[in-house]
This record gives sequence, C-alpha cells and structure tokens, in this order.
Amino acid sequence: MSIKEVQSLPGFREFYPESCAVRNYIFDMWRNVAHRYGFAEWEGPVLEPTDLYRRKSGDEIAGQLFCFEDKGGRDVSLRPELTPSLARMAVAKQREYKKPLRWFEIGACFRYEKPQKGRLREFYQFNCDMLGESAPAIDAELIALAIDVMTGFGFTKEHFAVRLSDRNIWKRFMQEAGVPEENETTLLQIIDKLERTRPDVLDTQLQAIGTSLAAVQEFTASKAETEAVTTVRQQLEARGFGDFVSVDLSIVRGLAYYTGVVFEIFDCQGDMRAVAGGGRYDNLAKLIGGSDMPAAGFAMGDVVIGNFIEETPVAKAKLDAYVKAASELDAYVIVASEERRPDALGIVQKLRSAGLRVDFALTAAKVGKQFQSAEQRNARLAVIVGDEFPEVSIKNLTTREEVKTTSDGVVEAIQHALA
Amino acid sequence: MSIKEVQSLPGFREFYPESCAVRNYIFDMWRNVAHRYGFAEWEGPVLEPTDLYRRKSGDEIAGQLFCFEDKGGRDVSLRPELTPSLARMAVAKQREYKKPLRWFEIGACFRYEKPQKGRLREFYQFNCDMLGESAPAIDAELIALAIDVMTGFGFTKEHFAVRLSDRNIWKRFMQEAGVPEENETTLLQIIDKLERTRPDVLDTQLQAIGTSLAAVQEFTASKAETEAVTTVRQQLEARGFGDFVSVDLSIVRGLAYYTGVVFEIFDCQGDMRAVAGGGRYDNLAKLIGGSDMPAAGFAMGDVVIGNFIEETPVAKAKLDAYVKAASELDAYVIVASEERRPDALGIVQKLRSAGLRVDFALTAAKVGKQFQSAEQRNARLAVIVGDEFPEVSIKNLTTREEVKTTSDGVVEAIQHALA
Repeated sequence: MSIKEVQSLPGFREFYPESCAVRNYIFDMWRNVAHRYGFAEWEGPVLEPTDLYRRKSGDEIAGQLFCFEDKGGRDVSLRPELTPSLARMAVAKQREYKKPLRWFEIGACFRYEKPQKGRLREFYQFNCDMLGESAPAIDAELIALAIDVMTGFGFTKEHFAVRLSDRNIWKRFMQEAGVPEENETTLLQIIDKLERTRPDVLDTQLQAIGTSLAAVQEFTASKAETEAVTTVRQQLEARGFGDFVSVDLSIVRGLAYYTGVVFEIFDCQGDMRAVAGGGRYDNLAKLIGGSDMPAAGFAMGDVVIGNFIEETPVAKAKLDAYVKAASELDAYVIVASEERRPDALGIVQKLRSAGLRVDFALTAAKVGKQFQSAEQRNARLAVIVGDEFPEVSIKNLTTREEVKTTSDGVVEAIQHALA
Repeated sequence: MSIKEVQSLPGFREFYPESCAVRNYIFDMWRNVAHRYGFAEWEGPVLEPTDLYRRKSGDEIAGQLFCFEDKGGRDVSLRPELTPSLARMAVAKQREYKKPLRWFEIGACFRYEKPQKGRLREFYQFNCDMLGESAPAIDAELIALAIDVMTGFGFTKEHFAVRLSDRNIWKRFMQEAGVPEENETTLLQIIDKLERTRPDVLDTQLQAIGTSLAAVQEFTASKAETEAVTTVRQQLEARGFGDFVSVDLSIVRGLAYYTGVVFEIFDCQGDMRAVAGGGRYDNLAKLIGGSDMPAAGFAMGDVVIGNFIEETPVAKAKLDAYVKAASELDAYVIVASEERRPDALGIVQKLRSAGLRVDFALTAAKVGKQFQSAEQRNARLAVIVGDEFPEVSIKNLTTREEVKTTSDGVVEAIQHALA
C-alpha cells in the first residue's frame, strides 16, 4: 500500500491553506475578544490520564474517549474537553494568581462520535473561564464576551440569542411540585432533552419521578428567575446587550459539573443549534481535591460556528475579506535581467526585513510570465529589477501606475505606494 | 483518587499564562516571518493511520510512536512529525495549486522518548516546505527564512550558524574512495553520528564498508561543494547572509527521506545543539504514490528554541518585552459609586468595543483597593466612574496625570492618553 492510499482518518481534519485561513479567522476573533476582556491564554496537554475524564465529564463524554494504554502502561486519553485540565492546573497554583482568574484556551479536542455536520472527531474548542469568584458578575462577563465574539463575526440579534437559566431554579420547582431531592439529576437530564424528546415519552419519564410534562411546561412558561439570573440579565442590559438575552428555563446544559447559572448561544435562524454554552461549576475544584474555588466558563467549537458563518451572508462577507487579505502579497519582485538576480535577491531581503510580504520568480522566466505570476499570487505591487539597477521601478498592479526609485529608496517608496 | 492526584503525563506540557505567552511569542515570530516570505499556513490531523509513519519516517521515529487501536479497530498514531501528512495532502491536490507551493505549519507532535532537556513527549514543530520546484533557489529561500526567524528572535552570528551540505556529495566520496553503492545508507548513518561517536568505533564502522575515518575526515576538510550547494551559498550571500553560512560535509540529517541539499541551524554558543534542520526530499511524493514533485523543507521545534532564547540575554530581553506587553491592560474601570455600576458597565463595554483591553472591579470594593487592583493588573490607565457621571476621570497610572472627560468622549480621550 502506498501512502497515497493512507487517507486521513474519518472525522479528522485536513486544513489546506484556504480552510486554514478560515480556521485562523475564527481563532483570531476568539483571541482578540478574549484579550479585550483582559483574559490570559493558557494551554494544557492534548493527552491526559483517562482518570481525569472518567468520573467528571459525565457518561456521554466518557463513552466517546479516544483512550489507550501508552508504552509505559498508563491508561491515557486524547482530551475530549478542556475544563478538567484547567481545574487541575488552577487548583495546583491558585495561590499564585490574583482572583478571579480570567483564562482562555483554544485547543484541539477529540471525541469518538459518528462524523456528521457540526460534529467531527477532531475539533477546536475556545474555552473562557473565570475562577475564584462567586458573584454573578462573572457570569455576566462571560456572556458579554460570548456576545462580543458573535457580533465580531458579524452576527446580529436576527441571527442568534442568548438563552439564560439557572440549574437552581429547578430546586424551587422540585420543592413546589413535591419531587424528591434524589431525583434532581434525573430531572435535569430530562429537561436537557426537552426539545429533542417526544411529549408522551417525556411525560412518562416525568411521572416516574413524581411530576408531569404539564407541570414542567407551566414552570418554564413562568420564566421564573433566581437572584443570580436577575443580576446577570441586568448587567447585560447595562452593557446594551438586553436584546440578545432571554430567560429560558429549559436550558440546563449537559455536563455533569454545572451548579448554577447556565447559558447557551442559540442559532435562531438556520439550524436552531447551540453554538456555544456554559455555566457555573462551583464544585469542580473541590471535587478535584482542591479547596473551594467558585468558577464559571463557556465553550465554543470551531465546527459549528464555522458552519454558521458560512451560511450567514453578512458573516461570510467578513470572513471572505479576511481570507482575501491573508492571501495577498505586498510585492512581487520581477527579475528583468538574470545578471541582476543577486541585486534582486538583495531587494527581496530588504523588503522582507521591513516586514513586507514578498515573493519573486525563483528561476529565470520571461518578464511577461513573471507579471502573470505576480497577479496569480495576489501581489499589490511589482518591483522590477533590471539592467538599470540600482534604479528600480514599482508598478501598482491595480492602477497600473508606475514610479521609478532606487535600491536605497525602495522600502520607503513601496510603503508609500501601499499606504 | 481525587483528580488533584491525576498529574499530567511525563513529558506533556502545562502552559500557564506566563509560559503560554512565551509559546505565543515563538508562534507569532514563526508566523510573521513565514508570511513575509509569502508562505500560506496549513494544518493536518493530529492523529493519523500508523501506516503513514511506519515506512517513511525511519526506524528511530517508528520506535517512538504513540500508537494504538481506535474504537473502529484502526491502527492509529499521534503524529511524530508533519512531513508525511503534508506530502499526502500536497500530492492529493497538487494540480489545484501553482508551483512551487510555499506552505508552513505550526503543530503539536508527539514522540515517546525519555523526557529530558530539549526533548519532551509533546512539542510544537514549525515546518516550512516548498514543493514542486527542483531549483536550488528554494533551498536558499528556506534557509533565508530560517535565518530571518533566528535574527527575529534577536540572535546574531555570534549565537548561531547555518551548516550546509548536500547528501549527494557523499556519492562523489564513495566513487573516489571505492565504497560500494549499496553501502550508501550505512555511510550516511555513520556520518550523521560523526560528532557523537568515539573515533575508534567510527573507524571500525567505516572500515567495514570499505573506507576509513581518515579518508572521511580528509574529505570533510575539503569542504567540497556540489553545484546546488554553491548556488545556495551564493544566493544567501546576495541577501547579505554570507556570514551565517558555512559548508560542513558532516551534516547529512537523520530522516530517511532526504535526497540532496541538507542544512542545520546550529547553536554555536551554548549547548552546541541543532535548533532547526531540513533539506531536499525530492522522492517523497513519488514514494507516497504521487507523481514527481521535488520538494524541500525544514523544521524547528519550540522546546529547543525556547531554551536557547531563555539562555541568550539579547533574545531573552525581546521575549520579556513581548510577555510584559501581553499582560498589560489599556484601562481599568474604577466603580467609585456602586449606584453608578450600570453606567460603569456601559463604559467598560464602550471601551472594549473600541478594541481596548479593559478590566474592572466585578464587585463592590473601596476605591483605594480598586486602584491597587488596577496596578496589579498592569493597567496603563484608570477610568473613574462616580457620582459625577456622565463626567468621568482618566488617570495615567504611570505619570499620575488626571484628565476629566464625559461618557461620550471617553474612547477618544483614552486613545489620546495611550498614544
């Protein structure tokens, strides 16, 4: 078998330059907005001991682990999510940092799922977390950050909505409806699948734990708020984000470790899918064996948001402008006389040292052919080096204007022509 | 066992914000220089079929694979290097791109080695490759790019040198010395370890294939050049890089697939180690089952270059300036009156929307305490929002100068104060 037939694995990603530029656009936006919020970047190991995930991530993720035994006999897994590594790292050095920590991460994650639209086996996740603060102000900060990422991509309130809730609200429901405390986990699991399960099935499940679908529907319609939800909502309104946010009690999020306020960024136009989600996980640090460290965070994956951008014209236009700019060269150096190649190389070097993006004809070619290459490479300018050296010409490939300068003045002349 | 005791795996990396900033500094430099050379970024899968590496990477790498069987019964490996994925991807779509391809990648790689200084089990590799061109001009381009990365980090010719050679020169030696052709691979393996093997062992090994250590030493002292090496050297001299480059016939590089010009960036000050290396691999595409596609490339790892930067004061100073800038905030908003918190949140949002990096006191705190937080967070300015709102004050935390402005003028006033 030749390697040509060794195709990449199903659900894994090959980023050719065009798709890598799309990926980088998403990464740049994530990083840029996180920086504006004063977040610092961290990164954990891609491979971790399987024990880190078995008990904390919940059964769904545990069943999708890429796990194996390494050469040292260790039970290891490609990470399916970032939060357990974060919690370990934050607990280990929590005394060294001023609270709350504002940390973000952009990293590859892996889940053995059936590859389909929006779900691949290898994907990138953007995680933003704030640790060491119990006030609802951090929930509001995180949601504001997520909203700014969305508006940064070009999405408006026509395209997405923030659905806000609090797992603790269901404690109130349980009390009022007389559902026994030990059924809390089961109740939350049923609520999490409210939109994806048939009503008769839901009702049977809910009757089994001492309530009914009618009671649940009545409760969600009440849009009851905990104090935390009210504060978060008001703080988002104060930032001018009120239009994006609504309370939706059916949001409880799937992960086992959430404890309070939870939210979801929801595509309300196309596929009606969650494009980001997160919430409070105040007990995770303690579960991990650390001291008390209240925390909240959210995650956004590159696959779903990438699809959403591609499907939304206003967002796609911003992406396209980025990708086009990423493929442009500032200048292409034309070697009009082979004898002057060493001088042309000197010019190439001078321009690159000035920070300009430059390519040139690596081997002898007719001048017309070199101009063609310059255009194919999306160069804005051509710099022609020929027998007149140290005199060189600069040609604007859009306006066709041409100016003459010398080797000494070439950097300045090009910066002027590009400005 | 609590997760606290689930430590990260030996040789794997935990990047806390300070070390992540160092990593990002290295990534930014790699990306920036590659862009100046007109290179486009790509990325392949982190997990690949093991067959991709077993026969092409050479025995050393094959023995260090993190390989396992996935849930679908596939024999898979965490990638130990990037070139085989690149070759597969380039062969698959070679008709869609104008030659030569100028592609770079920054990606995590994995090798099961004994963790030690400069060698970890998880590391990042910067790969630059040019495909589809046989002229030595691409070797010169790649070496120039590597040199520009090094000088970008602040290294000078006192710190590093480029050692240049050509595997084909040893064909000439074999002919002259009468070494049979079938011993070529063995000869290259011995040459590769010339500096790390005892002379008597070397001599015995070389006698066994029909030559001697004396003959090899005489040949390397000759600094003989192939035509390709001469062209590369001259083109680097034309760019002003002559001082960095010398011919060293003992350089043949370890990987099995190199076919011609090879080079190494050598730390000539501290640990006398290779910090980058690469060369021609004209046959890899054909080996992979594709058509002929001459190619060359080099790789630089983040661990060795990171150590080298930390150990070299002039490079360390550039790094430190970057890390400091990465931790700075443009402004910290002081909530001087809790009643004005909603207005303060509005100001925070306005500043962030203008692209500024902003933090603030999430919960009620004394003004003095908030100023302390502003300084701990490395904020350049404090913006004080109090009872006088919409009047706000901007205080420069370095010069202690204070100016008054209004909510409407705050963005402009801050941009002015930062300029």
